[in-house]
Amino acid sequence: MNVITTIQALTAAIQAEKDQKKTIGLVPTMGYLHEGHLTLAEQARKENDLVVMSIFVNPTQFGPNEDFESYPRDLPRDVAMAESAGVDIIFAPTVEEMYPQDGGIRIHAGRQAEVLCGASRPGHFDGVLQVVAKLFHLTQPIRAYFGQKDAQQLAIISTMVRDYNFPLEICAVPIVREEDGLAKSSRNVYLSETERQEAPAIQKALQLARTHFLTHGDVAAALAEARAHITTATNGKIDYIELLTYPDLTPVTANTEQVLLAAAVYIGKTRLIDNCLIEMKEGNDHA
Amino acid sequence: MNVITTIQALTAAIQAEKDQKKTIGLVPTMGYLHEGHLTLAEQARKENDLVVMSIFVNPTQFGPNEDFESYPRDLPRDVAMAESAGVDIIFAPTVEEMYPQDGGIRIHAGRQAEVLCGASRPGHFDGVLQVVAKLFHLTQPIRAYFGQKDAQQLAIISTMVRDYNFPLEICAVPIVREEDGLAKSSRNVYLSETERQEAPAIQKALQLARTHFLTHGDVAAALAEARAHITTATNGKIDYIELLTYPDLTPVTANTEQVLLAAAVYIGKTRLIDNCLIEMKEGNDHA
Repeated sequence: MNVITTIQALTAAIQAEKDQKKTIGLVPTMGYLHEGHLTLAEQARKENDLVVMSIFVNPTQFGPNEDFESYPRDLPRDVAMAESAGVDIIFAPTVEEMYPQDGGIRIHAGRQAEVLCGASRPGHFDGVLQVVAKLFHLTQPIRAYFGQKDAQQLAIISTMVRDYNFPLEICAVPIVREEDGLAKSSRNVYLSETERQEAPAIQKALQLARTHFLTHGDVAAALAEARAHITTATNGKIDYIELLTYPDLTPVTANTEQVLLAAAVYIGKTRLIDNCLIEMKEGNDHA
Repeated sequence: MNVITTIQALTAAIQAEKDQKKTIGLVPTMGYLHEGHLTLAEQARKENDLVVMSIFVNPTQFGPNEDFESYPRDLPRDVAMAESAGVDIIFAPTVEEMYPQDGGIRIHAGRQAEVLCGASRPGHFDGVLQVVAKLFHLTQPIRAYFGQKDAQQLAIISTMVRDYNFPLEICAVPIVREEDGLAKSSRNVYLSETERQEAPAIQKALQLARTHFLTHGDVAAALAEARAHITTATNGKIDYIELLTYPDLTPVTANTEQVLLAAAVYIGKTRLIDNCLIEMKEGNDHA
């Protein structure tokens, strides 16, 4: 496996692969890999000649009071894990390498970024689109892999790819969970032992809301049940629990085909997100 | 020559050329071709295996009171002229083909768009970047050709390519002029006979300012001379005449290496632009 830290070396490596007509699959990550990331890499491995994983904690998607500085980093460990998952090239640039100059041009996410995490983290998705556009141009993949855990991110990136005609396909990969149901996340390492025991309540709350919604079709009541569970089972603070159409992220109507049930909860100081997608099949009479 | 109007057909054609490892040069235009465009196409012809010209009057770069509807269009004439210049593929989509959906994601130009045409045409360069990014993704050129006449556009697109790592080179092509010095423009067709006679005064004014600046190094006095000439020689209304660093478009200082002297003038109802670049060589003691 090739660990590359400069754009010049990456460009040369990509060009060499392109010259051999190899198909490239990109797995963009912020590192501190867990099983969720490896699932992305393994799917990319199956579907492409070359798998590139980027490992870059992107400062432009963190707010001033967020955890950019403290975000966990361990490149040697990541390199070993990525190699075991079949990654061919790791691109791990410095911030200076990725942002050497700034002409002030910005990509602004649209309506999809006004809700959920976008409402709590102003500018977050603009920063995500900035780094993702750069990585797409640098690695020229025909497929890029993103986890369904970041469902809103996946929806917004898919919109950018569609509306700006990026010549690639976005591949969504299901959430990977711990045995007790907690969604795998690099930020889980922040949790104290007590917090770790509380954290699976987020998924449990989403499951309760899902069942309630599928049974009764009442969005408000379903969300209330989820909120009540989190309040009872944790000392956490709910940032949001919402049920919206997917991928448009608008209020659910009678014609909605796919629903996103998503939550962000502070367990202690750690903000965790989780979600589930619900297919609204024909014949359901409650939506 | 192949005239393509749909994204699906273009994508297939580009992929077929890429599969043959052909290098692609892109010439983005709004059509109603003149000799300036043909110079772009001819340079692209020399430097690439395949030359793609886009012909698309892009609505998102026009303001609500601008000339999107009346902008001159003549595809059959353009096709014949492009063929004579060696273009291989013309991509001439409809507005609906280019913008079938809108997720609201926008590219915003930075500081370079706050002056000159950007100050007079709010949102113009955002629209330019939007369509150019789409065309870059759709045609995957290794070189894209733009005229130096739109010097600010060239500077801003170059910044986007640099800061977003588009895998291509921006090639600048010199202004092509009529015999009397008027810069060639699709909008020259709007001019009445009297206006057409006045219009070369714009270039003359820039030449006067250039000489004054190179002789005395006084920005304000040089611009005053240009303004006086236009006021005397035309019934036009000056939108701006400015002298800025290039490509940053900031005020000139002692260290400035390249200067853009640019003007926009309404001759009757027609807004014409022109410019000249001035190299500030070492040993000049006036800047």
